[in-house]
Amino acid sequence: MKKCIITIGRQCGSGGHSIGKSVADKLGIPLYDRKLVEIVAERSGLSAETVQREGEYASTSLLNSIASRGYSAYNAYQRENMFLPDQINAYQTELIKELAEKDSCVIVGRCADYILQDNNDCLHVFISAAMPERIKRVIAEHGIAPEAAESHVKNRGKKRAAYYKYLTDRVWGAATNYDLCLNSSKLGMVCCVDIICNYCLNR
Amino acid sequence: MKKCIITIGRQCGSGGHSIGKSVADKLGIPLYDRKLVEIVAERSGLSAETVQREGEYASTSLLNSIASRGYSAYNAYQRENMFLPDQINAYQTELIKELAEKDSCVIVGRCADYILQDNNDCLHVFISAAMPERIKRVIAEHGIAPEAAESHVKNRGKKRAAYYKYLTDRVWGAATNYDLCLNSSKLGMVCCVDIICNYCLNR
Repeated sequence: MKKCIITIGRQCGSGGHSIGKSVADKLGIPLYDRKLVEIVAERSGLSAETVQREGEYASTSLLNSIASRGYSAYNAYQRENMFLPDQINAYQTELIKELAEKDSCVIVGRCADYILQDNNDCLHVFISAAMPERIKRVIAEHGIAPEAAESHVKNRGKKRAAYYKYLTDRVWGAATNYDLCLNSSKLGMVCCVDIICNYCLNR
Repeated sequence: MKKCIITIGRQCGSGGHSIGKSVADKLGIPLYDRKLVEIVAERSGLSAETVQREGEYASTSLLNSIASRGYSAYNAYQRENMFLPDQINAYQTELIKELAEKDSCVIVGRCADYILQDNNDCLHVFISAAMPERIKRVIAEHGIAPEAAESHVKNRGKKRAAYYKYLTDRVWGAATNYDLCLNSSKLGMVCCVDIICNYCLNR
């Protein structure tokens, strides 16, 4: 197989992570999800929990500041002080570029589609799903209480979108940021995995 | 083949129309593009040119009004007077629902993804492409002068997005509006056609 870096952005509960894992297994290439968080934690000296939390989702302090200052003002103001999300992003960006240099792999989340937007070896994928499926999945797989599931899913979406906008100045989930956007509840998980693998094996 | 209605939204110059045509040919089902415009013209008594122009792109008067009143205010104000885009949209909506009732087909543009959002026989597709390919395509296929090609492509995009927002209150090109978004310059035209046909033949 020709070198292929697959980046996967995904809605919470869409099954994007499982699709990434199946693609990595089927193609025999590494998957970077939690592993990426652990490497960044090791390099930065921050805890894996902090990197997990602040490296993909806007924290309350980030959201408050965006609300009062807007994206650009906040950005300019915070860069001078190397705010935590910027710090983590610097490590994530460096690591994601290193991984993409090395060999084929699957990278889940972490704005990898933006970081590697000019890398021709990449396939940038976004996975979405219908709300009822997303709710079912977070209850079954993430252990979220049924009564809290819908607000959990929506809240994660808002925080990911805000973090993405803050760091990339792009709209999260806009089709034009990706090469392939797949609705997993419509197409089915197996079909999503096949479409991605077929592209990688035949390009 | 099980009944399948394929709606195709597309960026100007992305090759979305050619992909729709190839899918229709390969599956042996009708394609509604210019034909849809002609039926609406016949039913409404308007000229095909008017339906073509005002049934998918925001006209200057619509854009001016959106700029001064915003989307909702304009919407509420104009509905009373049955403004031209609303009139055409009423005919288009009726016709697209009729076509989807009948049998498998491909429908290009005209907010069909929104009109048929709750129809389970549908596959909603969006085709994008990189700017250099879009410019090349409008020069070669639409006869646009090379020096005007980039602004032509951008201008059509803005007018489609405004029209779509006005009539659907959704963001044009958001991945979550579609089941499948394909970047034709990255994946190649043949690959796009195959992905769509494979889904329809195997669902």
